[in-house]
Amino acid sequence: MGSNADPGGGSSRDPGGRAPRYAAAGVDVDANTRLIPRLRALAAQAGRPEVLGSIGAFAGLFDLSGVSRPLLVASTDGVGTKLLVARALARYDTVGEDLVNHCVNDILTAGARPLFFLDYLAGAGLNEDSKVAVVEGVARACAATGTALLGGETADMPGLYRSGDFDIAGTIVGVVEKGRQIEGTTITSGDAVFALPSNGLHTNGYSLAREVLGLTADPERARALLAAHDPGLGESLGAALLRPHRCYLSVVEPFLDRCKGIAHITGGGVQENLERILPEGVCARLDPARWSIPPLFGLIQRRGAISDAEMYRVFNMGVGMIVVVAREDAEVVRRHAPEACDVGFLEPVPGSRTVEIVGIATP
Amino acid sequence: MGSNADPGGGSSRDPGGRAPRYAAAGVDVDANTRLIPRLRALAAQAGRPEVLGSIGAFAGLFDLSGVSRPLLVASTDGVGTKLLVARALARYDTVGEDLVNHCVNDILTAGARPLFFLDYLAGAGLNEDSKVAVVEGVARACAATGTALLGGETADMPGLYRSGDFDIAGTIVGVVEKGRQIEGTTITSGDAVFALPSNGLHTNGYSLAREVLGLTADPERARALLAAHDPGLGESLGAALLRPHRCYLSVVEPFLDRCKGIAHITGGGVQENLERILPEGVCARLDPARWSIPPLFGLIQRRGAISDAEMYRVFNMGVGMIVVVAREDAEVVRRHAPEACDVGFLEPVPGSRTVEIVGIATP
Repeated sequence: MGSNADPGGGSSRDPGGRAPRYAAAGVDVDANTRLIPRLRALAAQAGRPEVLGSIGAFAGLFDLSGVSRPLLVASTDGVGTKLLVARALARYDTVGEDLVNHCVNDILTAGARPLFFLDYLAGAGLNEDSKVAVVEGVARACAATGTALLGGETADMPGLYRSGDFDIAGTIVGVVEKGRQIEGTTITSGDAVFALPSNGLHTNGYSLAREVLGLTADPERARALLAAHDPGLGESLGAALLRPHRCYLSVVEPFLDRCKGIAHITGGGVQENLERILPEGVCARLDPARWSIPPLFGLIQRRGAISDAEMYRVFNMGVGMIVVVAREDAEVVRRHAPEACDVGFLEPVPGSRTVEIVGIATP
Repeated sequence: MGSNADPGGGSSRDPGGRAPRYAAAGVDVDANTRLIPRLRALAAQAGRPEVLGSIGAFAGLFDLSGVSRPLLVASTDGVGTKLLVARALARYDTVGEDLVNHCVNDILTAGARPLFFLDYLAGAGLNEDSKVAVVEGVARACAATGTALLGGETADMPGLYRSGDFDIAGTIVGVVEKGRQIEGTTITSGDAVFALPSNGLHTNGYSLAREVLGLTADPERARALLAAHDPGLGESLGAALLRPHRCYLSVVEPFLDRCKGIAHITGGGVQENLERILPEGVCARLDPARWSIPPLFGLIQRRGAISDAEMYRVFNMGVGMIVVVAREDAEVVRRHAPEACDVGFLEPVPGSRTVEIVGIATP
């Protein structure tokens, strides 16, 4: 691919040196002209043979003609205010990984494998190297998951974003063969419930975390707090907060055909996200003593004097993904994913679907 | 569809009343809980039978198994600082149309018809009704173009966006049968070049337009300037600036199979965008006297004392789309699209591809 990949689009496309008034209005067309080949080179690193390289000046083209009975599975996401932690530390190369991995996990819940990704990067006063670093993160995660970086848009929006600020979003499209999609409908009492560990907050709860950790006021102070080594964490607060959202594709793929339901634990936490995939008549009872909760969550809870119930509703609390398989398939999960914790069981509950976490009050 | 459409995702999913500290950190979870059913109802208005409604808590599913030899065509776009004009006028219901129409036009250049769309809406302190109005615009344009609104993400990001500010982006996925994609490669000298009129700036050049029109400094003054009737425009400046990006799908569809090349005129203007689809060895010579330029462009040029060359590089100058057909198909275009202007001709030019606009200096 490469030549048709178009991560620098629309408003950033105006060539340099020919638009002096545009430049004066805050759109650095020169820098954008230099940017496009660098972004295309990154997209070329995340290619697939199905991407058609000869065309696509305005759009990316992906050949799906070799797939029989395709169901397309798509998701759009952002990174939330984790961006502001990255911004405070001037670390631009990780948030793209967050974005892609979040999206890959989302479509994995339906049993889909990724085909391609498109990114949106908007901001003001972001220099060329920072933009490239953001898309580098996107391209790295795309390459690691076999996802083509098919296109994107880079927009300078002075007046909306403060200078140096930016936002990113991304869209993934994946595929699952019709009839093999995972719907959760076959989940029943007696099935096994496994949790796959998260490595931190992933991309949820950062507005709360930043506030209770004192990161929202003075940028200088925020930088100092983030940079300091924290003995309880065994690393700096910034390193713990910025760790990219884990991608579960390679973990789950070996037993994907055994999965009856998959929940990606994002905003709303374990309870709400697991509840979304349960059929009516099934109650999940999970025991948090069976999985380990990274120290970052305890730090946030203590600093904010936050109730257990709220912690479990805002944060993933150490659980990045939950997979439900038939009891007889539990061994397959354990073999392929030794880190998976058998965290509870499913019971019948007439006319309802609920998730209870032992010891945590239902808010 | 509807139940699986997920336009309110991730960070906005946390239920209300159960997260007091989260609310204090600026994420109004109560409002977001009320928002989700309203956004789902909008998505239901932009449905298609291929959307699978029973699943998709984390992603949208679209059944493509009925399409033979599909090439997927995808594009991501934003609306740029046109958003700030909408914000100044507190008009939230049009920018979603801009977004969808821009994307539909982008994939139309490859000969693709839309399948589905996903939106991203991020901001801070935007009330529920304003968010709904934004997605209403998205849904309206999706419904008008036969595009399913398959999903989306709504994110509250206090600390990144100023209160009341927001950004939107969107991704479209369309399809064209393999072998029928439009590539521009068959364009040759002697082909006919038609321009389809734009209805204003569409979504490009707003940073420059806002600056020269005095809209960037004081919000109160901007509002007054936008609201005042302008005799030269025959309407208010705000109405002229906010008019949604035209969608050319219904215009071009009747003769889509005759098109050898289609250029969507966005940032970079007629020259750069037409150049993108020309094969090597072809020069286009266009005569701007053959199409009409809406008075808004003249107003911007006078106020900013902007050169012709820069105007043509930043703005569409009245041309929203250019289609190239064989000379013998010109009559078909005229019959289906009486508004189409035959704006010039294509000549051989060894080893190069260029676009000249008669009377406009090459910058």
